[in-house]
Amino acid sequence: MIFSSDNYSPVPQQVLDALVEANKGYQPSYGEDSQMTKVRHLIQKVFEAPQAAVYLVATGTAANSLALSTLCEPWQTIFCSPVSHIHEDECNAPEFFSGAKLTLVGNGDKINPKELKKSIQAEESRGVHGPQRGPVSITQITEKGQVYTLNEINELTQIAKEFKLPVHMDGARFANALVSLGCTAAEMTWKAGVDVVSFGGTKNGLMGVEGVIFFDPQKAWEFELRRKRAAHLFSKHRYLSAQMLAYLENDLWIELAGRANKAASRLIAGLKEIKEVEFLVEPKANLIFVKMPAYIHRKAFSMGLEYYTWSEIDGVSDDTPVVARFVVDWSRSLGDIDKFLEIMRNAAEKESYI
Amino acid sequence: MIFSSDNYSPVPQQVLDALVEANKGYQPSYGEDSQMTKVRHLIQKVFEAPQAAVYLVATGTAANSLALSTLCEPWQTIFCSPVSHIHEDECNAPEFFSGAKLTLVGNGDKINPKELKKSIQAEESRGVHGPQRGPVSITQITEKGQVYTLNEINELTQIAKEFKLPVHMDGARFANALVSLGCTAAEMTWKAGVDVVSFGGTKNGLMGVEGVIFFDPQKAWEFELRRKRAAHLFSKHRYLSAQMLAYLENDLWIELAGRANKAASRLIAGLKEIKEVEFLVEPKANLIFVKMPAYIHRKAFSMGLEYYTWSEIDGVSDDTPVVARFVVDWSRSLGDIDKFLEIMRNAAEKESYI
Amino acid sequence: MIFSSDNYSPVPQQVLDALVEANKGYQPSYGEDSQMTKVRHLIQKVFEAPQAAVYLVATGTAANSLALSTLCEPWQTIFCSPVSHIHEDECNAPEFFSGAKLTLVGNGDKINPKELKKSIQAEESRGVHGPQRGPVSITQITEKGQVYTLNEINELTQIAKEFKLPVHMDGARFANALVSLGCTAAEMTWKAGVDVVSFGGTKNGLMGVEGVIFFDPQKAWEFELRRKRAAHLFSKHRYLSAQMLAYLENDLWIELAGRANKAASRLIAGLKEIKEVEFLVEPKANLIFVKMPAYIHRKAFSMGLEYYTWSEIDGVSDDTPVVARFVVDWSRSLGDIDKFLEIMRNAAEKESYI
Amino acid sequence: MIFSSDNYSPVPQQVLDALVEANKGYQPSYGEDSQMTKVRHLIQKVFEAPQAAVYLVATGTAANSLALSTLCEPWQTIFCSPVSHIHEDECNAPEFFSGAKLTLVGNGDKINPKELKKSIQAEESRGVHGPQRGPVSITQITEKGQVYTLNEINELTQIAKEFKLPVHMDGARFANALVSLGCTAAEMTWKAGVDVVSFGGTKNGLMGVEGVIFFDPQKAWEFELRRKRAAHLFSKHRYLSAQMLAYLENDLWIELAGRANKAASRLIAGLKEIKEVEFLVEPKANLIFVKMPAYIHRKAFSMGLEYYTWSEIDGVSDDTPVVARFVVDWSRSLGDIDKFLEIMRNAAEKESYI
Repeated sequence: MIFSSDNYSPVPQQVLDALVEANKGYQPSYGEDSQMTKVRHLIQKVFEAPQAAVYLVATGTAANSLALSTLCEPWQTIFCSPVSHIHEDECNAPEFFSGAKLTLVGNGDKINPKELKKSIQAEESRGVHGPQRGPVSITQITEKGQVYTLNEINELTQIAKEFKLPVHMDGARFANALVSLGCTAAEMTWKAGVDVVSFGGTKNGLMGVEGVIFFDPQKAWEFELRRKRAAHLFSKHRYLSAQMLAYLENDLWIELAGRANKAASRLIAGLKEIKEVEFLVEPKANLIFVKMPAYIHRKAFSMGLEYYTWSEIDGVSDDTPVVARFVVDWSRSLGDIDKFLEIMRNAAEKESYI
Repeated sequence: MIFSSDNYSPVPQQVLDALVEANKGYQPSYGEDSQMTKVRHLIQKVFEAPQAAVYLVATGTAANSLALSTLCEPWQTIFCSPVSHIHEDECNAPEFFSGAKLTLVGNGDKINPKELKKSIQAEESRGVHGPQRGPVSITQITEKGQVYTLNEINELTQIAKEFKLPVHMDGARFANALVSLGCTAAEMTWKAGVDVVSFGGTKNGLMGVEGVIFFDPQKAWEFELRRKRAAHLFSKHRYLSAQMLAYLENDLWIELAGRANKAASRLIAGLKEIKEVEFLVEPKANLIFVKMPAYIHRKAFSMGLEYYTWSEIDGVSDDTPVVARFVVDWSRSLGDIDKFLEIMRNAAEKESYI
Repeated sequence: MIFSSDNYSPVPQQVLDALVEANKGYQPSYGEDSQMTKVRHLIQKVFEAPQAAVYLVATGTAANSLALSTLCEPWQTIFCSPVSHIHEDECNAPEFFSGAKLTLVGNGDKINPKELKKSIQAEESRGVHGPQRGPVSITQITEKGQVYTLNEINELTQIAKEFKLPVHMDGARFANALVSLGCTAAEMTWKAGVDVVSFGGTKNGLMGVEGVIFFDPQKAWEFELRRKRAAHLFSKHRYLSAQMLAYLENDLWIELAGRANKAASRLIAGLKEIKEVEFLVEPKANLIFVKMPAYIHRKAFSMGLEYYTWSEIDGVSDDTPVVARFVVDWSRSLGDIDKFLEIMRNAAEKESYI
Repeated sequence: MIFSSDNYSPVPQQVLDALVEANKGYQPSYGEDSQMTKVRHLIQKVFEAPQAAVYLVATGTAANSLALSTLCEPWQTIFCSPVSHIHEDECNAPEFFSGAKLTLVGNGDKINPKELKKSIQAEESRGVHGPQRGPVSITQITEKGQVYTLNEINELTQIAKEFKLPVHMDGARFANALVSLGCTAAEMTWKAGVDVVSFGGTKNGLMGVEGVIFFDPQKAWEFELRRKRAAHLFSKHRYLSAQMLAYLENDLWIELAGRANKAASRLIAGLKEIKEVEFLVEPKANLIFVKMPAYIHRKAFSMGLEYYTWSEIDGVSDDTPVVARFVVDWSRSLGDIDKFLEIMRNAAEKESYI
């Protein structure tokens, strides 16, 4: 059983059906398809933002890098968490697309308002010599499974606004955060001061579709040119649109994230009963980070579980604490979770390990 | 009836089926999926190139720009046709990815060997001051529907080799060319001196999948880093792999291109019988360029045909010659062609135009 | 005697004196020196442009590339002559700084208004797919020694304005053009519709100083950031300022260009009397292009003349016509010209060549 | 009296004389001047590196950015100190030239070997997703006035070599470090494992000339293309060469740095006797960082001293500690230092401050 990544998961039947449906007949290319019109309206409705400019791309890195490059100039610096995807997992794509540099705020996962302010203030003390202040990028849910509350988002965007800086939200797991907070999409974004969102679909049940939403459409055309220039404008765009449409219709996206979060909750509750399991931080959605002795990992792996550990388990002593990440995607049944927990409980029983 | 672009066409049932099949269960992400292993082997087999490095991306512009940037340095210039896609239709993507400039060879569609040689020789006469010679990029089939013969490809690659320059083939319509020439994939590429191919799938029946094939795998890892950095590495890569697999299995790609070319032949033959229709150049595959008086376009449009004209037809006199492009994609039945021709014949009868 | 390039020439005594004077005491760095204030005012006065933003850099390529990158976006194309310095002699620097591509207008040296219009119109017919229209760059005097009249400049800038495109003037030999036309700096620039000028100093007597003048200062701060980011902001900036100050004071720049042009006129007149010398185009300033049989070059070289030929003279027959460029810089005395002519006359006498 | 920056200082008479001398006659451009040949040989001799490729540029930022971009790929990260010039004072120039990102090692000024190793190890744990390891850049003397011992340099380069990473030295104040250590240029560079040096001249008495030295000339041509493409190749290059020649001849560079360091020592000794002055770190060359109550700064400024403080002194209480930087350049006499100290002693006497 694989709990390695939500990128390993399949897509729900509705998405397959939507592709079959979208495949009928001929459709204009490059985003002029009729489905995209529906997607645009639906996203504007979901986000209560009738003026928003809405685009689709196929990867989260594209969504982030194109959004950020549209928000900044190449002599600026982007403020982000040191564990953010844009810093650690995109092979310099944000720098490539924007020309800007990244300033890592604090040492943690969530960005702390005081540290954000300090980081912003520290720039532009050197006139033309230093990088200029650029956008703030926050990740919701964070890479470590935390969720910013609406208040926390507001605090961060307030600081950005003080310095007239735009705010980007990397919402690769946007839906999981929304379900976790129980708020509206508008509340979590523009009502809280966010200017542009990478609205993730891939990790939550699509094959490779992400929305980019500009609440102020002023830079819409620039974004379109950037998207094309970066080779991210799809010719047969209808297949992106169709997926996103299925995702939005009947709140499928909320349903999928709800399933993932619910299954994750069950997993969290079960893990809490295993005394050898230590949580790095209380998980708020579908990403779980725990520390456990190496022997448990070894046994769990031998019993068929799959997930990533943050350090090697080979060649270390049984009791060496090793960090692991469990990702619970939309496709996991509660039965899967129970099986996972059973294996883990077994693995934790040291005497049984021979 | 739409003959505007092969990007407007649907995908065949096999591709939908492949997606459904690929959707079962969990799969490693970012190209580690088991389907990709099959794709790699199948492409190596099809191209008789067991050492080739094989990658998938989702857009033709990505395939071209990533391939070319891997072949050149930012102080070089890429030699290409003035009507090439990389020059006219990619919004500076090749320049963005590579940093290089483009040198337009000659004034035509196909690149002429003498002009290529002249263009290459004209560079590097200024030492460090001018751009340095970079890769040669040829488009097969060309943007105007021509097909380079194997001899012609050989002539061009010979010249490139003289100057030690690598050769890229933009094969957005690779299959249509192959069917037209009746040769093997190897013959049309590495056996003719081509180093890297953009192996198009999208225009010939996929949703958005293109192969990039390096016959010499030396720069494979660089390509992988470039692909990731440009945000073109798919997390749920299996859905690209599955499509390409369906495309290659049972020579579906050949079959689809065969259908398109055959239908196009019928269309060409029929159009030749209409005396008002003048061919800009003898079409060799599924792209057809004709010149006809404006009134024919107007009537054809009013009777439900759709295609692009190269200049406005509104507000010009009936007899103004206007260029049009017809693209015949894989999905067109011979019956469709007959209907198209009937409309066109009707439209051409001047007296009937009221 | 060297007539190869105005880059081979020394600087006049006034420039050396200015450096000695500027060296006294301490001065703020990075353009905050008191000399720069004077330079700014003097240039504003010379150009009758009290609002102009004025900057100094050390190379012509920097002036051009920084100016153009400030005027355009990376998805645009810059319209220029196919023999322009920015295309042929800057090793992709304009592309590097701007991200844009270059569209070569016509086949000649001077840009023809009709061809400019045609080139501009030809872009943006493909929406987001093609490069977008960007600035027009004209070179005054041209690379082939021609001078645009005020009317000609006006015609070109009018066309640019029709399309709302900014106009850049590469004035590497600005002073030579001004002297040739006998007009004011304002007339040759903003009064004729030019938005930004690379105001050359180096070829006309400075060690390496070029002005960049924005008649509309709106993008001044962006330029400053671009200059710093490209490593072209000098710490000990006073030594640039001092040179430019000496250049402007007492109209030294006009005097130097006047000398060069006058000496060039004498050379032109003398060459016209040698029947073997054919002018490629009537020279208007201090750049002279002629075609002569190879034997003349061989003899001239053997008698101590130095200049560039546009093709090899070794291994060709005596009568092969070979193009040469003579550059007359400010430092050439009329006596030098007479010696040059004497050698050339001698060289042209075929019988004397043994 | 100005102790703000070594960029505020004049150049010695020898440099002026060299310019006058170099101005005689005509010289080939773009680095083909005869002086450059001498510079190359002299630097090869000074560095005991007969194979070294040697280049001149006009700014330290150009030297660093061009050197680093030649050493790395755009998908890599450059390891450097968080207070390095390349990070804080070059407005993203290193990122612009290289495409790479910067990884800040530790929290201090000097790079600590353990932290360097940790930083390097932390990269490349994510395959293609994270940035790849790139060059290590160390600053000698550091931005805070520290000097790496030969052992310390060796330790750092050893770690870099372990990971096969090249090492760059930002030697903006190379001479001051050399004098401080009393070692040879070879010992402080290639013998200690450094691959490329930015050999500073500007801060130590030139108008704007920096050497870039590649001990392995393999990438020499690439550097030349990069220099030209970045607009940093001077046409009248002889004026750079002449300055560097004067700098090297008779060990002028050592003499100038010796003067600066000696005067700085006297200043340091004097400051140590003022009990209100606290050193942030023991200065090793000509950069001095101290903390003093605000009132002392206010009095010193009113008595004619000029230097930078790291925070505002206006509107803070008399006793607020405020950090200042004193830079002692080559032109400062011991008499100047005594005057400086006298003012500072006066300023420190609280009772006298009315």
